[in-house]
Amino acid sequence: MIKSPLQIARESYNPKLPEALKGTVKIVEGNKTESVADQGDISKLFPNTYGMPILSFEAGESAATDKAISVGVILSGGQAPGGHNVISGIYDGLKKLNPANKVYGFLGGPGGLVNNEYSELTDDVIDHYRNTGGFDIIGSGRTKLEEEAQFDKGLENCKALGINALVIIGGDDSNTNACVLAEYFLQKKSGVQVIGVPKTIDGDLKNEMIETSFGFDTACKVYSELIGNIQRDANSAKKYWHFIKLMGRSASHIALECALQTQPNVTIISEEVEANNMTLGEVIDHISEVVVNRAANGENFGTVLIPEGLVEFMPAMKKLISELNDILAHNEVAVSTMETNKERREFVVKKLSADMAEVFRSLPNSFANQLMLDRDPHGNVQVSMIETEKLLIDMVKAKLKKMKKAGEYKGKFSAQGHFFGYEGRCAAPSNFDADYCYSLGYTASVLIAAGKSGYMASVRNLTAPASEWIAGGVPITMMMNMERRHGAMKPVIQKALVRLDGAPFNALKRQRDEWAANTMYVYPGPIQYFGPSEVCDMPTKTLLEESK
Amino acid sequence: MIKSPLQIARESYNPKLPEALKGTVKIVEGNKTESVADQGDISKLFPNTYGMPILSFEAGESAATDKAISVGVILSGGQAPGGHNVISGIYDGLKKLNPANKVYGFLGGPGGLVNNEYSELTDDVIDHYRNTGGFDIIGSGRTKLEEEAQFDKGLENCKALGINALVIIGGDDSNTNACVLAEYFLQKKSGVQVIGVPKTIDGDLKNEMIETSFGFDTACKVYSELIGNIQRDANSAKKYWHFIKLMGRSASHIALECALQTQPNVTIISEEVEANNMTLGEVIDHISEVVVNRAANGENFGTVLIPEGLVEFMPAMKKLISELNDILAHNEVAVSTMETNKERREFVVKKLSADMAEVFRSLPNSFANQLMLDRDPHGNVQVSMIETEKLLIDMVKAKLKKMKKAGEYKGKFSAQGHFFGYEGRCAAPSNFDADYCYSLGYTASVLIAAGKSGYMASVRNLTAPASEWIAGGVPITMMMNMERRHGAMKPVIQKALVRLDGAPFNALKRQRDEWAANTMYVYPGPIQYFGPSEVCDMPTKTLLEESK
Repeated sequence: MIKSPLQIARESYNPKLPEALKGTVKIVEGNKTESVADQGDISKLFPNTYGMPILSFEAGESAATDKAISVGVILSGGQAPGGHNVISGIYDGLKKLNPANKVYGFLGGPGGLVNNEYSELTDDVIDHYRNTGGFDIIGSGRTKLEEEAQFDKGLENCKALGINALVIIGGDDSNTNACVLAEYFLQKKSGVQVIGVPKTIDGDLKNEMIETSFGFDTACKVYSELIGNIQRDANSAKKYWHFIKLMGRSASHIALECALQTQPNVTIISEEVEANNMTLGEVIDHISEVVVNRAANGENFGTVLIPEGLVEFMPAMKKLISELNDILAHNEVAVSTMETNKERREFVVKKLSADMAEVFRSLPNSFANQLMLDRDPHGNVQVSMIETEKLLIDMVKAKLKKMKKAGEYKGKFSAQGHFFGYEGRCAAPSNFDADYCYSLGYTASVLIAAGKSGYMASVRNLTAPASEWIAGGVPITMMMNMERRHGAMKPVIQKALVRLDGAPFNALKRQRDEWAANTMYVYPGPIQYFGPSEVCDMPTKTLLEESK
Repeated sequence: MIKSPLQIARESYNPKLPEALKGTVKIVEGNKTESVADQGDISKLFPNTYGMPILSFEAGESAATDKAISVGVILSGGQAPGGHNVISGIYDGLKKLNPANKVYGFLGGPGGLVNNEYSELTDDVIDHYRNTGGFDIIGSGRTKLEEEAQFDKGLENCKALGINALVIIGGDDSNTNACVLAEYFLQKKSGVQVIGVPKTIDGDLKNEMIETSFGFDTACKVYSELIGNIQRDANSAKKYWHFIKLMGRSASHIALECALQTQPNVTIISEEVEANNMTLGEVIDHISEVVVNRAANGENFGTVLIPEGLVEFMPAMKKLISELNDILAHNEVAVSTMETNKERREFVVKKLSADMAEVFRSLPNSFANQLMLDRDPHGNVQVSMIETEKLLIDMVKAKLKKMKKAGEYKGKFSAQGHFFGYEGRCAAPSNFDADYCYSLGYTASVLIAAGKSGYMASVRNLTAPASEWIAGGVPITMMMNMERRHGAMKPVIQKALVRLDGAPFNALKRQRDEWAANTMYVYPGPIQYFGPSEVCDMPTKTLLEESK
């Protein structure tokens, strides 16, 4: 690996730990817990891992075992900045307890456990990855651990390697599966523990005990750097509207955080669109209104932030997509042999319900075509392939043309679309994420040494200095409820959407009219690792607002 | 303006100056100069500004006037990081000579001079913009100063404000026009000097005396940050090919610099495509070959860098675009009233020459449609609107499908397109650009005080520490030759393309086969302003290679 100068300089950064993790750790048990809903069902499904107490760590006499143990680590799902620091935290925590402890990495995600693809992680390896972005140390993957056959194979592979515990670093689904696995291993009295670490850039794995998921800070800062640069360009050239789509399929936390960091003219929050039952036309009306008002002030430029999942949050579009998923699944061969998109549209429109046929016909052709694109392996439309930013540009353009004809608008509208996702997922972690991820990994090592299973590592009080952070473990069952998935009720971790009564959204709501009318852009610039603390160590605006 | 913490921290950065500019400056005259070509024509067109000597600055007794002067500043064309520092350099240089000196900014580009839109720049204003990105201090614009009527109006406005000199900060065309204006003002004995400052992100304003244009360093570092992040993602997920289009319509310096910084699998250099007379099909063959070879090693992922101007460098495409420009210009009404792209394509194909009709028919429809998009005000296809990255993805996909059928390829190909332009043009300048731009501005102030006109500010020896940089002035006529523009021969500054015998291209050529076959990505990370010098103060690889 040829390392960049920054990478070399960052190798020597020592992540900050909570005070309680610096010496030996005493584990304090809190009250027994209940799941957030459906307590009856969840407790029945998780007889061994339900109702466990919240654990918090304090400096003190450790009751942990000092017999040598081996731990397997798995990275699950999409990349998030700081994954390597979680692993180095686990590694350092375990090595401190007993230098004979071993860490294995399963390769390419959960599939590596089932297929017995692994490599041992040693100083030689770990030291090259400290404070770096990416999941390339062992790779990630999207195989879901859901079947008993997979569990048994995984257990067999653990036994062969002498592995005492697994750490699964993943999002809500992966942590749900981690808990199912923990429960299964306990039922089997296998002696293999399972610990989860909360990861999802979208920020939707979040609750009272998980203040933020790792990587969210870094990714939002990278996106905000770019949005700020684009806004400065818009305000210099004064001739373009920039429509910027951001990651966030199932929640709009990223768009919200980036808005608070950069103060754009328009921010669409999917959760608000859904709550207000807004149609695509109403979203277009809203954006157009801002464009028209700014044009009246002579400002024919601006920025619009759009969360990736927007169209799925519009009730009408959601219904349309669901009908399309069915139609395309049942007519795969017929549709795939059609020569033109026009044929496909005409075929599909006949099969849609009357309501949805009308919605489908109202869409620009290019967008209607995208909705008929190849499905993902689960038969769902691939939302990240939908060019929502271009759809909105085209529809706003059409609306403004009408308004111009009617004498209601006298500006110029020229727009550029952008989509930021891959640009931030593997950025080198900010100081915050470097510290937070390392602490999460270290926390996982303490939970393992204490013999815990079915817990998620938790580090809280994140707006305070790292030394005051509160580390501990949260029973995963505590975050669960029952939801319908693929036609059956399943226990899953509740997704955290943007709360419309929450402080971050209220901060946006309070200021957005002013940001729309005026040009009040903020330019955060790139993540800094070495400068003054107010530049290098600030947590997200979301965390700051929530802790007010 | 609400300032970000980084912006506030950067306000107090003191740009480094060449030693010669720190005290009083002695101007040393070198030999008389000649234009790079067409000396007879150029000398006739520029009787007052041709053949002037190169000027270099040394510490020493200044012969500059100390009578109070007023200077007008103009930002011309696309944004580049560091424009604000050029202005603060001019300002500080002039104020040091005489605190009564005044600086005016003409608003919104060269149009501001003609329309007499200006504002005085004072400490209050300047101090908010030190070391920031963007051109928002006075705005920029693309009005070309070419007509005598504009010159006369500009002169009248300068006279009214008591302006003694103009500084035009712009690219090759704007500096050509600056020289034409200088010559005109001298012929008129107007007493108004004109000085140029070299700016173009694309890096195509470059020669022996102008080692790099400002902003190139910062923009390339922002793009390389993003490319590095994407490469780390590619190497973690191991499932996508990323096709990344980069700014650079008339030269591929940005793609080349970013390649040297990040070591991607494929880098297309437009100048090489042109020199080898490559067709679109041959470019596709080349990329496909790399994809196939990597797939054979089990690596179904990678990165491809593509310069924005690529299609215009392919001789066949260049001819096709030129024919299309003519056809669309002569049939504007007919084409614009057609309902569908299919109609348009069929209309156009009948009017093309037989050769070009064949090329046009061989293109994917979506791309053929883009070639018929709205023209720019000069009747040219808007290259930045052509989604070359998607075109290449579609064509590589089609090629691989054929190869798979023929049993020549056994991989998976899934690709993502990106385009980076606006993301970097207004980034806060790197330390290098902050220093370089400030020095350029300061140099301009010295040239003005010495009564010079028709000169471009030049700061050289840029791989040495800033104190050893060599500042001075270069006669703009020295960089000129005659070229055909809009059907007539015009004096213009020669564009600097990537030299295929140059050190930077050779560095790519030497290593690219290795980078293609293996995964040797480098992850530069974001621009740092405060860290160790090897992280914060490195010039571009292009400069380093050229100075070896």
